[in-house]
Amino acid sequence: MMVSSHTAMRTLLVVATALLLLSLIGQAETQPEFNLMPMPASLQAGSGELALNQSFTVAVTGHGGARVEHAAQRVMARITAQTGIPVSNTLADSSKATLVLSAEKAGESVQKLGEDESYKLEVTPTGARITAPADLGVLRGVETFLQLIQPSPSGFVVPAVTINDQPRFPWRGLMIDVSRHFAPVDVIKRNLDAMAAVKMNVFHWHLSDNQAFRVESKKFPKLQEMGSGGQYYTQDQIRDVITYAHDRGIRVIPEFDMPGHATAWFAGYSELASGSGPYAMEQKFGIFDPAMNPAREETYKWLDKFIGEMTALFPDQYFHIGGDEVNGKEWDANSKIQEFKRAHNLQTNEDLQAYFTKRVQEIVKKHKKTMVGWDEVLHPDIPTDVVIQSWRGPKGLAQAARGGYRAILSNGYYIDLMFPASQHYLNEPLSGDAAGLTPEQQKLILGGEATMWSELVTPDTIDSRIWPRTAAIAERLWSPQSVNNVDSMYRRLAVVGHELEYTGVTHNSYYERALERIAGPNNVHSLMVLADVLEPPKEYHRGQMDKLTTDLAYNRLVDVLHPESDSAREFAMLVNRILAGNGSPQDKSRARAMLIMWRDNDQRLQPVLQNGNFLMRELVPVSQNAAAVASAGLEALNYLDAGVTPLPTWTQQQLAVTTEARKPHASTLIMIAEPVQKLVQATQGGPPAPGKW
Amino acid sequence: MMVSSHTAMRTLLVVATALLLLSLIGQAETQPEFNLMPMPASLQAGSGELALNQSFTVAVTGHGGARVEHAAQRVMARITAQTGIPVSNTLADSSKATLVLSAEKAGESVQKLGEDESYKLEVTPTGARITAPADLGVLRGVETFLQLIQPSPSGFVVPAVTINDQPRFPWRGLMIDVSRHFAPVDVIKRNLDAMAAVKMNVFHWHLSDNQAFRVESKKFPKLQEMGSGGQYYTQDQIRDVITYAHDRGIRVIPEFDMPGHATAWFAGYSELASGSGPYAMEQKFGIFDPAMNPAREETYKWLDKFIGEMTALFPDQYFHIGGDEVNGKEWDANSKIQEFKRAHNLQTNEDLQAYFTKRVQEIVKKHKKTMVGWDEVLHPDIPTDVVIQSWRGPKGLAQAARGGYRAILSNGYYIDLMFPASQHYLNEPLSGDAAGLTPEQQKLILGGEATMWSELVTPDTIDSRIWPRTAAIAERLWSPQSVNNVDSMYRRLAVVGHELEYTGVTHNSYYERALERIAGPNNVHSLMVLADVLEPPKEYHRGQMDKLTTDLAYNRLVDVLHPESDSAREFAMLVNRILAGNGSPQDKSRARAMLIMWRDNDQRLQPVLQNGNFLMRELVPVSQNAAAVASAGLEALNYLDAGVTPLPTWTQQQLAVTTEARKPHASTLIMIAEPVQKLVQATQGGPPAPGKW
Repeated sequence: MMVSSHTAMRTLLVVATALLLLSLIGQAETQPEFNLMPMPASLQAGSGELALNQSFTVAVTGHGGARVEHAAQRVMARITAQTGIPVSNTLADSSKATLVLSAEKAGESVQKLGEDESYKLEVTPTGARITAPADLGVLRGVETFLQLIQPSPSGFVVPAVTINDQPRFPWRGLMIDVSRHFAPVDVIKRNLDAMAAVKMNVFHWHLSDNQAFRVESKKFPKLQEMGSGGQYYTQDQIRDVITYAHDRGIRVIPEFDMPGHATAWFAGYSELASGSGPYAMEQKFGIFDPAMNPAREETYKWLDKFIGEMTALFPDQYFHIGGDEVNGKEWDANSKIQEFKRAHNLQTNEDLQAYFTKRVQEIVKKHKKTMVGWDEVLHPDIPTDVVIQSWRGPKGLAQAARGGYRAILSNGYYIDLMFPASQHYLNEPLSGDAAGLTPEQQKLILGGEATMWSELVTPDTIDSRIWPRTAAIAERLWSPQSVNNVDSMYRRLAVVGHELEYTGVTHNSYYERALERIAGPNNVHSLMVLADVLEPPKEYHRGQMDKLTTDLAYNRLVDVLHPESDSAREFAMLVNRILAGNGSPQDKSRARAMLIMWRDNDQRLQPVLQNGNFLMRELVPVSQNAAAVASAGLEALNYLDAGVTPLPTWTQQQLAVTTEARKPHASTLIMIAEPVQKLVQATQGGPPAPGKW
Repeated sequence: MMVSSHTAMRTLLVVATALLLLSLIGQAETQPEFNLMPMPASLQAGSGELALNQSFTVAVTGHGGARVEHAAQRVMARITAQTGIPVSNTLADSSKATLVLSAEKAGESVQKLGEDESYKLEVTPTGARITAPADLGVLRGVETFLQLIQPSPSGFVVPAVTINDQPRFPWRGLMIDVSRHFAPVDVIKRNLDAMAAVKMNVFHWHLSDNQAFRVESKKFPKLQEMGSGGQYYTQDQIRDVITYAHDRGIRVIPEFDMPGHATAWFAGYSELASGSGPYAMEQKFGIFDPAMNPAREETYKWLDKFIGEMTALFPDQYFHIGGDEVNGKEWDANSKIQEFKRAHNLQTNEDLQAYFTKRVQEIVKKHKKTMVGWDEVLHPDIPTDVVIQSWRGPKGLAQAARGGYRAILSNGYYIDLMFPASQHYLNEPLSGDAAGLTPEQQKLILGGEATMWSELVTPDTIDSRIWPRTAAIAERLWSPQSVNNVDSMYRRLAVVGHELEYTGVTHNSYYERALERIAGPNNVHSLMVLADVLEPPKEYHRGQMDKLTTDLAYNRLVDVLHPESDSAREFAMLVNRILAGNGSPQDKSRARAMLIMWRDNDQRLQPVLQNGNFLMRELVPVSQNAAAVASAGLEALNYLDAGVTPLPTWTQQQLAVTTEARKPHASTLIMIAEPVQKLVQATQGGPPAPGKW
């Protein structure tokens, strides 16, 4: 019996590369000189480079305090991880150290919005120095230094450079929803490390929603006992995460969503609700009727105690109360609430919610915190010290600023919607309506937040939904507005995405393991050829295809796919150049080689899929369609090359193939279908395909 | 500028699989029915299967205590990790549970040698049950259950089966040397989880050596302060690891190597040494002169205090004092020691060491522990309650047993020597001299230990040196002697090796990341094609090639390579079948496809290597030689196919190519060179190549 090992099979699957491709692919293109993300505000290349070897040491001078020393420890550990060089793990004397970290002062013990994060990094062939007015700047600078490390002909080096850097926006956040799917502390921590690596400074912790309440409350223990399914953070764990984040220059802002999105609270405390219950943790996703009762004074007494407990637990100045998506049905159905509205002259449910929001805002203020809420809290009755998080559309941000509110942008940064990095990258906060704001109003735009809503993610896959795309958002919020070249972003993202794994996130390494779970060790690589051209559905389309609940197994191919297919993006770019008449012979050969690979992969994969397990079988039509599309693309290239116009029946048939292939199967999208459709249409001199699926 | 992303490049490198290989590779071969490792003592397949889905629950009955409940928690977490199914994390009622764990009693609070590990596992379509006389058996049984989980056409299932199982040997260990390279606690813990997954029950912790002393001593703090470079375990960490191991049914046996291999002790306590010093942590590897002074009574007083402290810290009954490789030079050079020898009528340095060993044995015994030592402690003066760890040769084990000593086998299980899994697998403790032992003497053979000496390993790579090969050793020590089919072992190892990553070890997932460090994101997969046919040097040859020290960067390709090339093993097997005249047409086509891939890969890789960084440049001749060998192999296959005998000059030339290719370059071995050499020789009807390089 032949031993067909995993490795041998993979090797065979990689076969014939050179045979087929050598003539097609030249040298790897020249790397951009500095694979930094986010790009610094100012960078001047020097001459020469600093050698990085076993004698590398770090020293700390100035008055930056413990946080700088911890950063120095992390630099030493990360260099060893990134390069394999066993550098010293003890601090050196500043007169002898390779890298000197120097901050003039320590930052606030509770990090404040707008603290100075600027730094200067100077690298010469003899040493490197990061200086900053405050310790936060050193934390940002060391991440730049780590990104500059690269192997050279002589060894690992850091190129000589002078960087003066500071952020464009003071609020650069990542929200993680831990309600719909829980994220254990280790998942949170590794994502904090990755955030720090791209200079993000706000972790917005969406801790409660209809599906679960995730924090231990000592005053109201039924919140976690009846609202978390046993999956919640103890207060010790919360404090541990806050300390961990602060050490990395990241503020932790808790969100307790109210008055809607709160069903899980009502499992233990139904008296808070507007309906009669009973209530239980919601297992489905969407907008639900339950909402807090804004007409009972007891609600505010309860919230005063609760917010008192939580503002003591979370030291940040800002406290997020959610406020989104109340459908008002429970309010309409409750006669006492209707009575309350009349008594208080509240015309609409929006007015009623504004009443609630104002009351909560007063409680939050009483506990010496500043309230943050989603778009919906914006109302003429709400004081302007509330911060608005804009999510519903591009206009909300400018509207808030015009009203005198400070605002942060999340519309366009919804990474759960599976859009490509470029789309988020080009989502400029000060564009559209916001471009017309006065300079004073523009100052009210604090920044933005990527939002990782967790309906579809598990601890296995969450990193791959956040990274590397969030690094592009981090650059948008840190770097000058003029830094906006998409090609450059993708080139740097490939390198920085690799480096991010050294912070502990697993967005690259999970992929092969997850595919192997589906395909077994012998077929993982032919499944990968298919998976590499697929993407999950966009926006909320997945929910229209599959019955989704919190207790579903998110282990199908669609759950493993990268949100963005690098292969399909490259292929689409080749097709665009070819159809625009400026495709090189290499472009054409490369496009052809890709199509051949995709077409022929089905011959190997198809029998395995048909005889495979349940996770494989649903992929039968996906592989067939991908092969059919690739075949159509090859034929179209032949016609275009030959300058021959095919018969209309051929074109009709191929358009039928690509149209069919653009429909989702097994909840996946074949991302090469659209560019192939363009090729087919071009054989008739026709227009490009309208819209996206 | 074209975006050549990591993924797109990989996809292209996987190109043309089907085109070239479809006709060559049939369906993946039928999997063996049960991918278990170690194979149980008795297994009877039932009919049908148990569905594994969201409603899966675990219950605990009987009197197994907390350890069974913790095992139940781990089962639930591992099922979620392995399958992606969110199973409950709380224990269920036994009347309703899918899996019931039942032990009649808890094991010893300090696990003893020879405790009952037997269990019975019954799986039917309606449920599964693990019963055992003691909790240890349940711990073993749950690992069997987890290995049985597989995806089927209907979902994840566990096939119906009845297993009655118990180990062949009571001592199944893994030794990790943390002196030459430190292994942080998280590395130790994940390896304990992997050990438990293959039913190993002894973690032998080699805590001190010439290069470092790794435990906090409160009585002698200069041990860690001057002997560890800041890298040591606190006593709290030691206790934490011991608790963690006990929870998984693993004993922790500390080793403090003496009187040799102890230079790091002398850095803080030079008075213990036989020379005049000064002493410092050794940075090189090998056998060194420093040794404790056996002639001073103060040495034994010191050791009494030290052993008192350490036997209190490590609760296991057994205490390893090393005793290996004393070269005696410091003793010979010390006149007082010479005087002492004469005064005590000790003829040789071996007699002097036996005197020392006996004194230490008395101290160990005074502290109520049983001493373990390497081969060298065996001496007529040493009492037979000492356990001998046999490492020097195949005869030592039987010799010890004949002398009435209990013994464990490590000779043949030295996984640092980079030998293939098959070699360790076939290293049968009761073969050779030991086969001639009486049944009573055979009972003295307690089992064996894989030994991970850490000269060449770092936290990055250590898992890949231990796993998956150690699983084969675990099977040798657990399963019946008759379980010894190498093909079956390799088939199961591929599956179990994949599953082992779910325990946290990284032997598979480190590979691509480490290659990417060398090659960058764009060239990682053509480097992988080369790396897949290479192996590191065997035995201690690497030390003859490279100047090795503890502070070297172990980041070259040789440090990343798998110890065993699956691709080369498969290719060698094809060649053997072809040359034996029973190669199928598929065998020949497959061998040819592999050779084409390896030949052509150099065309792509070579310019990248030549223009690459220092880690790439040293690979220029390796890639060239691999391609030349592959080319020779293809031509040889052509001659053999055609039945034409080539001119002797051709054969001479090709033998020169393969001979050259069998020499190490960049400290790597091209593992396809030997089988190709056989092909070339076969064209002349010549004999196979003698010996191995």
